[in-house]
Amino acid sequence: MRCRVCRGNAAIEVRRHNAAFCPDHFIEHVRRQVGRTIHDYAMFHADERLAVGVSGGKDSLALWDILHHLGYRAEGIYLDLGIGGYSKDSLTRVQTFAEKRDLILHSIGLAQQYGFSVPDAAKATRRTACSACGLSKRYILNEEAARRGFDVLVMGHNLDDEAATLFSNVLNWNVEYLGRQRPVLPASDGLVKKVKPLIRVAERETAAYAILSGIDYEVEECPMVEGNTVNRLKEWMTLLEQRSPGITQHFLGGFFDRVSDRFAVEIPDLHPCSDCGRPTTGERCAFCRLQERAMQ
Amino acid sequence: MRCRVCRGNAAIEVRRHNAAFCPDHFIEHVRRQVGRTIHDYAMFHADERLAVGVSGGKDSLALWDILHHLGYRAEGIYLDLGIGGYSKDSLTRVQTFAEKRDLILHSIGLAQQYGFSVPDAAKATRRTACSACGLSKRYILNEEAARRGFDVLVMGHNLDDEAATLFSNVLNWNVEYLGRQRPVLPASDGLVKKVKPLIRVAERETAAYAILSGIDYEVEECPMVEGNTVNRLKEWMTLLEQRSPGITQHFLGGFFDRVSDRFAVEIPDLHPCSDCGRPTTGERCAFCRLQERAMQ
Repeated sequence: MRCRVCRGNAAIEVRRHNAAFCPDHFIEHVRRQVGRTIHDYAMFHADERLAVGVSGGKDSLALWDILHHLGYRAEGIYLDLGIGGYSKDSLTRVQTFAEKRDLILHSIGLAQQYGFSVPDAAKATRRTACSACGLSKRYILNEEAARRGFDVLVMGHNLDDEAATLFSNVLNWNVEYLGRQRPVLPASDGLVKKVKPLIRVAERETAAYAILSGIDYEVEECPMVEGNTVNRLKEWMTLLEQRSPGITQHFLGGFFDRVSDRFAVEIPDLHPCSDCGRPTTGERCAFCRLQERAMQ
Repeated sequence: MRCRVCRGNAAIEVRRHNAAFCPDHFIEHVRRQVGRTIHDYAMFHADERLAVGVSGGKDSLALWDILHHLGYRAEGIYLDLGIGGYSKDSLTRVQTFAEKRDLILHSIGLAQQYGFSVPDAAKATRRTACSACGLSKRYILNEEAARRGFDVLVMGHNLDDEAATLFSNVLNWNVEYLGRQRPVLPASDGLVKKVKPLIRVAERETAAYAILSGIDYEVEECPMVEGNTVNRLKEWMTLLEQRSPGITQHFLGGFFDRVSDRFAVEIPDLHPCSDCGRPTTGERCAFCRLQERAMQ
């Protein structure tokens, strides 16, 4: 296989683009894909302050690296979920990454600042850890981005993540979630604008990008991932992608470009949570309720 | 395993209903499911004249049998597609079925009455036979039902057929097809009302129904099925169903009950086809264009 650009030895094939690339041109290719996604969905401008939610994994570190190379001002926010050695290792990767590139990192401890860890929450709710983890991340990353005056919160969900989530939402026809699954969620009262520039980059491509550009990321999977149904659907969609290269992007892009408006929801009236004061639809927000249960 | 109703030996387990049945109570169960579907979607009344599109396979013969036992006046329409021994065998099954039950069968030959067979059409269009076959069936069954004054055309698509079609339409976000995929397509100018009462009965259940109620159906798969993408998706959804019993019905029912209206399309202006006079959106209908190519 030869690189599509320079005809040198290819390091990676991208079947859905019917192309192969050498390391340098693959890196260039991914950056261009992300740059185009940012442009096509009008995600943000060069003069805006970006906060990247970073976990220490390949996706978020690749994203931060790409934004940095595209010339955006992006700082990182790391949330320590309190998952033992996994969280400690992840923080080390993020710190090393930021120091090497002289980037600003903000780190928050779920246990230190909110009094509970993801394992505590999983125990208290008796459900898969992923739902408590997702809820905490959404709440705290938004909280930090808002408090620090960032214009945009940038998340590292890749093509496969988003497609599997869409597939889950479609299997259940969860119209509320379908209405909110968008590349750009505009800012609203108390909620920072949120965007996902990696929606056209597949998981194996973010991994290849990280490896080829020398990013030392956390390769271990989260030890609490068991029972995550979206992960199972992701494996399942991979089978389909192998048979029909491009179907995953076709499915996700088609939804964003031609269908998601049909599920657009009226933004519900938000009130300040009676406890934390952050916007919520109910009396008391889901995070405060989770926190109470997890701290008992 | 014991029958849910009589505690006798069960012949079949229906995992998504968390139940098992003896032969007699399974037959009763399927008839009740179909009766409820007809009622829930207001498909037709006892005094209406029904035409069942019958192929000789398990689904359409099971459906005709069920309608007969539920007390509906249903006649059969068989379209001979001209696929060699397969079509001849299928016709024999349908004739035997109708004679045994003293039911009226109308038989049309695609080659005899329209001058071409499905193999001719596949050759001429150089595409999978299934698309020419589907188009011909839709056209001719409607034509026959209208000409003979039937109130409703009843089709034997089962739960797995419909779910795989929906899945295909969703993967491609084909909003036009999504708008037309409904349990009931109301009558419109020149088009007979069309309904699908088997949408809550899985494929293995229509097969079990046919076997347990002594229907001698065509077990051979159509020899021209190669390249049928919906069939591939059906196999693929079966894997998901095995892991999560009920997901197929949940997916299809959720779409019909809560989502399909979002894809509702304005019924386009229909004009008489310049050739055959049947309603079409263009100048000349797709069937007449297919016929012309297939007869060259």
